[in-house]
Amino acid sequence: MEDYLKADERIDDLQLGGLKIIQHPRKFCFGIDAVLLANFATVKKGDTVVDFGTGTGIIPIIIAGKTAASSITGIEIQEDMAEMAARSVLMNGIQNRVRIVHGDIKRIDRYFKDNSIDLVTTNPPYMNSGKGLVNPDSSKAVSRHEILCSLEDVVSSAARILRNGGRLAMIHRSNRLVDVLYTMRIKGIEPKVLRMIYPAAHKASNLFLVEGQKSGGAFLKVLKPLVLYDGDGNYTQEVYDIYYRGKRM
Amino acid sequence: MEDYLKADERIDDLQLGGLKIIQHPRKFCFGIDAVLLANFATVKKGDTVVDFGTGTGIIPIIIAGKTAASSITGIEIQEDMAEMAARSVLMNGIQNRVRIVHGDIKRIDRYFKDNSIDLVTTNPPYMNSGKGLVNPDSSKAVSRHEILCSLEDVVSSAARILRNGGRLAMIHRSNRLVDVLYTMRIKGIEPKVLRMIYPAAHKASNLFLVEGQKSGGAFLKVLKPLVLYDGDGNYTQEVYDIYYRGKRM
Repeated sequence: MEDYLKADERIDDLQLGGLKIIQHPRKFCFGIDAVLLANFATVKKGDTVVDFGTGTGIIPIIIAGKTAASSITGIEIQEDMAEMAARSVLMNGIQNRVRIVHGDIKRIDRYFKDNSIDLVTTNPPYMNSGKGLVNPDSSKAVSRHEILCSLEDVVSSAARILRNGGRLAMIHRSNRLVDVLYTMRIKGIEPKVLRMIYPAAHKASNLFLVEGQKSGGAFLKVLKPLVLYDGDGNYTQEVYDIYYRGKRM
Repeated sequence: MEDYLKADERIDDLQLGGLKIIQHPRKFCFGIDAVLLANFATVKKGDTVVDFGTGTGIIPIIIAGKTAASSITGIEIQEDMAEMAARSVLMNGIQNRVRIVHGDIKRIDRYFKDNSIDLVTTNPPYMNSGKGLVNPDSSKAVSRHEILCSLEDVVSSAARILRNGGRLAMIHRSNRLVDVLYTMRIKGIEPKVLRMIYPAAHKASNLFLVEGQKSGGAFLKVLKPLVLYDGDGNYTQEVYDIYYRGKRM
């Protein structure tokens, strides 16, 4: 295992059929949001899946472990992150189904044909560029702020490569819900399923999951609330089952 | 009291400082959604408030009873409903603050000056016109289906009469959340506060409350979930407090 590691990196166990992931503590590490998105997106047998801004590769690796998707590609603009994600794929021996591409989603036409993909997933930078920005060169900043791509870039590129009826699944901050739903509709990906996430049953929502369909009709299903922690600060049963028992949403 | 009643009408007690309302069982009667909206909308002392499609007048009467708004006007296109609502206002002796206008919100310029109103409330017809329509002449159908006004009419007319910074508060079906947020943004009323309503903690959302601000900046606050019924089928404490103890949200 350690053959796959570079200096200062560590291997984390995903509690999912032996799958593991390489992370670097000083770079962007995956959070609960990526795990929730990977378990929320509708994935059908034989689907071709593309994950925009894949970072550590967490979303492709979970989807490979939990679904019968035939091909999952993670695209990542930061070369060192893409290289590390590719090593995670090799370490897990899933390179026949998962591929990591170092590339820019703003030039998505270089990597994928138009109208060809069943599902795009993305856990994009949450913050508008220029807001509270500290270090624009760091990998954490690139992952969190819209420095290298905007929400509009993400949705436009997804709309381009998705087949008609194909799906875009995203997790984002609740304070940008209007931006996300508006941009999806404008770009021809109609939001079809929404799930609001609440840190606790009596707290304001901080995140949401949404899935839209290219050229879909206007009708939204708002699922039951997803509550992360119970009154004692432990994961709720649903989140526990996703993390430790391999369940999907 | 009975002097205010016509044939087949009844008087319901609002459990709110003695306020009462006249209803007709075969016409559209107010539901929990109107009560929730009246308790959700931000109302400041001295505000001028307009309620679009006021029906029985339930929203103006609750706002008169619970807030220090200086003037509240309910506008209703169905003449018999407007006449009945006006009698409820007289019966409660609140005609110095509440006025009912028989009119069409599509011609809102006939009744209000542009850029003059602090708050517009509306519990509009939920269903797209033409969908599953039974009897387009009945008052129930007009209240439930977009026969006489569309969502776009409602938001356009609100945008017209609201002052800059003024608010539009609405309750609507969750399956039309995208339509509502999209239309508000398009018309220059930025959604600022959203509260999803769930019939029970483990059920899909059926309704939502939203408040937008004319010319407001893009930043949405998604409040804690509003759950209507507990596991025993009784109102949750929050809903009980609104109905029977006069609390606002």
